[in-house]
Amino acid sequence: MTNAASASSTGSAPTWPVNAWYVACTPDEIEGKPLGRQICGEHMVFFRNGEGNVAALEDFCPHRGAPLSLGFIQDGALVCGYHGLAMGCNGRTVGMPGQRVKGFPPIRTYPVVERYGFIWVWPGDAEAADPAKLRHLPWAQNDEWAFGGGLYHVACDYRLMIDNLMDLTHENYVHASSIGQKEIDEAPVKTRIEGDEIVTSRFMDGIMAPPFWQMALRGAGLPDQQLVDRWQICRFSLPSSVLIEVGVALAGHGGHEADNAHKASAMVVDFMTPETTTSHWYFWGLARRFAVQDAALTNTIREGQTKIFAEDLEMLERQQRNLELHPERRLLLLNIDAGGVRSRMLIDQAIAAGQAGQAPADQRSVAAV
Amino acid sequence: MTNAASASSTGSAPTWPVNAWYVACTPDEIEGKPLGRQICGEHMVFFRNGEGNVAALEDFCPHRGAPLSLGFIQDGALVCGYHGLAMGCNGRTVGMPGQRVKGFPPIRTYPVVERYGFIWVWPGDAEAADPAKLRHLPWAQNDEWAFGGGLYHVACDYRLMIDNLMDLTHENYVHASSIGQKEIDEAPVKTRIEGDEIVTSRFMDGIMAPPFWQMALRGAGLPDQQLVDRWQICRFSLPSSVLIEVGVALAGHGGHEADNAHKASAMVVDFMTPETTTSHWYFWGLARRFAVQDAALTNTIREGQTKIFAEDLEMLERQQRNLELHPERRLLLLNIDAGGVRSRMLIDQAIAAGQAGQAPADQRSVAAV
Amino acid sequence: MTNAASASSTGSAPTWPVNAWYVACTPDEIEGKPLGRQICGEHMVFFRNGEGNVAALEDFCPHRGAPLSLGFIQDGALVCGYHGLAMGCNGRTVGMPGQRVKGFPPIRTYPVVERYGFIWVWPGDAEAADPAKLRHLPWAQNDEWAFGGGLYHVACDYRLMIDNLMDLTHENYVHASSIGQKEIDEAPVKTRIEGDEIVTSRFMDGIMAPPFWQMALRGAGLPDQQLVDRWQICRFSLPSSVLIEVGVALAGHGGHEADNAHKASAMVVDFMTPETTTSHWYFWGLARRFAVQDAALTNTIREGQTKIFAEDLEMLERQQRNLELHPERRLLLLNIDAGGVRSRMLIDQAIAAGQAGQAPADQRSVAAV
Repeated sequence: MTNAASASSTGSAPTWPVNAWYVACTPDEIEGKPLGRQICGEHMVFFRNGEGNVAALEDFCPHRGAPLSLGFIQDGALVCGYHGLAMGCNGRTVGMPGQRVKGFPPIRTYPVVERYGFIWVWPGDAEAADPAKLRHLPWAQNDEWAFGGGLYHVACDYRLMIDNLMDLTHENYVHASSIGQKEIDEAPVKTRIEGDEIVTSRFMDGIMAPPFWQMALRGAGLPDQQLVDRWQICRFSLPSSVLIEVGVALAGHGGHEADNAHKASAMVVDFMTPETTTSHWYFWGLARRFAVQDAALTNTIREGQTKIFAEDLEMLERQQRNLELHPERRLLLLNIDAGGVRSRMLIDQAIAAGQAGQAPADQRSVAAV
Repeated sequence: MTNAASASSTGSAPTWPVNAWYVACTPDEIEGKPLGRQICGEHMVFFRNGEGNVAALEDFCPHRGAPLSLGFIQDGALVCGYHGLAMGCNGRTVGMPGQRVKGFPPIRTYPVVERYGFIWVWPGDAEAADPAKLRHLPWAQNDEWAFGGGLYHVACDYRLMIDNLMDLTHENYVHASSIGQKEIDEAPVKTRIEGDEIVTSRFMDGIMAPPFWQMALRGAGLPDQQLVDRWQICRFSLPSSVLIEVGVALAGHGGHEADNAHKASAMVVDFMTPETTTSHWYFWGLARRFAVQDAALTNTIREGQTKIFAEDLEMLERQQRNLELHPERRLLLLNIDAGGVRSRMLIDQAIAAGQAGQAPADQRSVAAV
Repeated sequence: MTNAASASSTGSAPTWPVNAWYVACTPDEIEGKPLGRQICGEHMVFFRNGEGNVAALEDFCPHRGAPLSLGFIQDGALVCGYHGLAMGCNGRTVGMPGQRVKGFPPIRTYPVVERYGFIWVWPGDAEAADPAKLRHLPWAQNDEWAFGGGLYHVACDYRLMIDNLMDLTHENYVHASSIGQKEIDEAPVKTRIEGDEIVTSRFMDGIMAPPFWQMALRGAGLPDQQLVDRWQICRFSLPSSVLIEVGVALAGHGGHEADNAHKASAMVVDFMTPETTTSHWYFWGLARRFAVQDAALTNTIREGQTKIFAEDLEMLERQQRNLELHPERRLLLLNIDAGGVRSRMLIDQAIAAGQAGQAPADQRSVAAV
């Protein structure tokens, strides 16, 4: 256990792969108006053009430097709210009252894809942007699943959130009153590589469900006071998502492998999009396989997650500041930290390789912690 | 149009002429108490002495460094609110309980003039301060005019506000619901030098008055639903004022030259006083030549201007931050920008010459844009 | 009077002796939960263990760097709120679910003493920490006295507060409406060394008591409209406390030496604990020798002090910023400043000697101002 890693990972050098797809926003955020958002250090503006396609541009009007995100959409162009320059999706000015705009310098564009209910942006080399590199989200286009989610701005390095999600022992302390239970500490955790993913799993058999899962069992039409088998399977993949298979099955039906009729299962969805080296956008949600028609349940769960994930924010933001205060301190790397440690190794390799979205060739050489 | 100027004008080096008169405050701000205000990077305190004259001093008590502006006026001296040192208008201590103050070191004084309803300060070389260099304000001491105004603190380089005021095409976008109208974009703009001033003018003939001017027409006892000729003549002069002749005349009476009986005319008053390189004090107002006895109208107009000028603030402050983020970007210089560009040339010449308030000898050599 | 001292005492180098006892907090602040507080630049966490003893540790969990102060107390250990590491009073991990903690690196501990109603901490060399060096507080363990106090966070160098308290002429200006009176300016002030203390005293005989002392006289069962003798004896001692003997006696009974039956006397209690070089924790209070059983009076006085000391805060914080703006300015050293000047000399000597709590051998060589 006494290996150690430097706490100084919170410096100001870019700490993310740029050649990768990141969640930029959700469709409702660009409904009828542009959205300005800093992503991977870049100030971007997102908007939907006349054909309904999403574009991402530098948030900088070439006329006088006003933020284009303060403007409005007209005839499919993004019109600057200061003097009326109309900017097209391709970063070229399409018009301006009383001006010939042909010679106006273009502004930078960023590749964008809309899929799975999110707008994705590629902040790096546009040539390398391939929608096929987007991670497949099995639950997003499937009627057997229902999804609800939200967005938090978090003032910490996005990798601290990855650490958080790849080590769910924190549930017992940060979320003691909702999803924590002592069996989490007691169940052994295993970390392994599975294809392009780092996978950390924990199985707790024959336990009582904690409050959140009792609610889920009731939502699924199952008894909430019987013994259950519970599982948590955290899957990190580049550049910065963690999808967590979670659920409980009535004891004796096969646990994670049980038939749908005997379990309440779901996928915790976490996309961390760096804003700066010390802040990120946290897109979170839950995709569930039970009671998928029940919109009221979707809201109830979203409200529950809103509270639970808020409990992490103070801890993470204070951890960030503490690490900044002590850049020389080295942290412990315990078995429970293996998921985060290996995920960071993938990130470092992707930064070094200048690319992400596909696993580096040597990822299987990552030593076991 | 494709000339370009660097956006990096937002650095930390002084960006204003110091040998010039700037509006420091209005008389109501120093009524019965001192006022602390940072002007051109200098922390100053303003107060009125026993004879009613205004003084400007360093805001620093020579005893223990407390801000004198936290003190009070007694017997014509500015008494420090910490231990009672009494400071005179000349920057010399005049008394302190139990102390002989003759040897106390003096603090800096700044030349001050009170005129035209403002207190003016000269932050540079006191020897060069000549009240005769003060720009004459024709409307300020004339019963044919009525004036109302206000003050905003704006977190941007004062020169961005000059750009804003010397290019009124922004009215169509920033002020779409009040004074904007499409004819502004359509009317050609002309920029010229007139004595010590940079003048940008626009004439819109035979149009319907926008809401603000309809109100003014009614205030002047004129019909508000007839065609009018509208004009905007922006006059910049050193160090940083823009006076704008504005008005509408019932169509067919000579426009700007029409008799007072057929027009509602006014002067938009704008004094920008630098605070730091990235912030300024914006003294704004309107001097009008109609219904000058109507105090209620003065209030109505002031409230209208309060709203209109507030619309500029977010745009300007966001533009400032955008330019700071992109110091390497070069901006476009279009015909509509000529007024601002030439005004900045005068400012640069005045900074280089180390003086302002009188036009540099070579100002007429400024090339046409 | 024309000696001068640089205003640049507000730099970023440590400006306090570290080998000294500072007030860290009061017992109510650590009741049932840990307290995080920055003291002398160090981020500390305070908590009470199972035996009721107080411990002070680095506020940094050796596992992942979370602040331990966000955790909770369990079985006498401080449990990290993130992943459950349990930290002992000695800075060594005592347990963590599923982990062998024997090899975990220790964190720093700080010597702590609980005495006189305060928790005291020694931020320097632990070997040198000797509870016997704690200043004796005669009023704190004596039924003849009653005490009430509070805590302010002040954004200024703690030494500006020492200056403030060692020169009470400011009462006439900052506290004009409560404890100020013109006789303070008129009475001569004397500064001397008395053992380990710098003592500044002022006596005002045959005056009317100001509002605060009229209230105290009434509280003591004495007439409040008779002439009194008033005294203020300010005692600074290392590292940063000022205790002020204050009171009024009915005139003709001996003043400061009068019998208790004829006076209302008290001790103003001031402990300044540096947080950073430009901020400190100000523990203030009043210990009185009259009407000691009257709890309502304790509250009344505490409320009065709360208001009076709040009047100092703006002045001190603005003075701090003014000094930062003008690091090159030199301040005046008048006779009224002698108490602060000599106190700072003791501090400087203690910093140079690397120790405090005992008077440097050469303190009596401090030249008279």
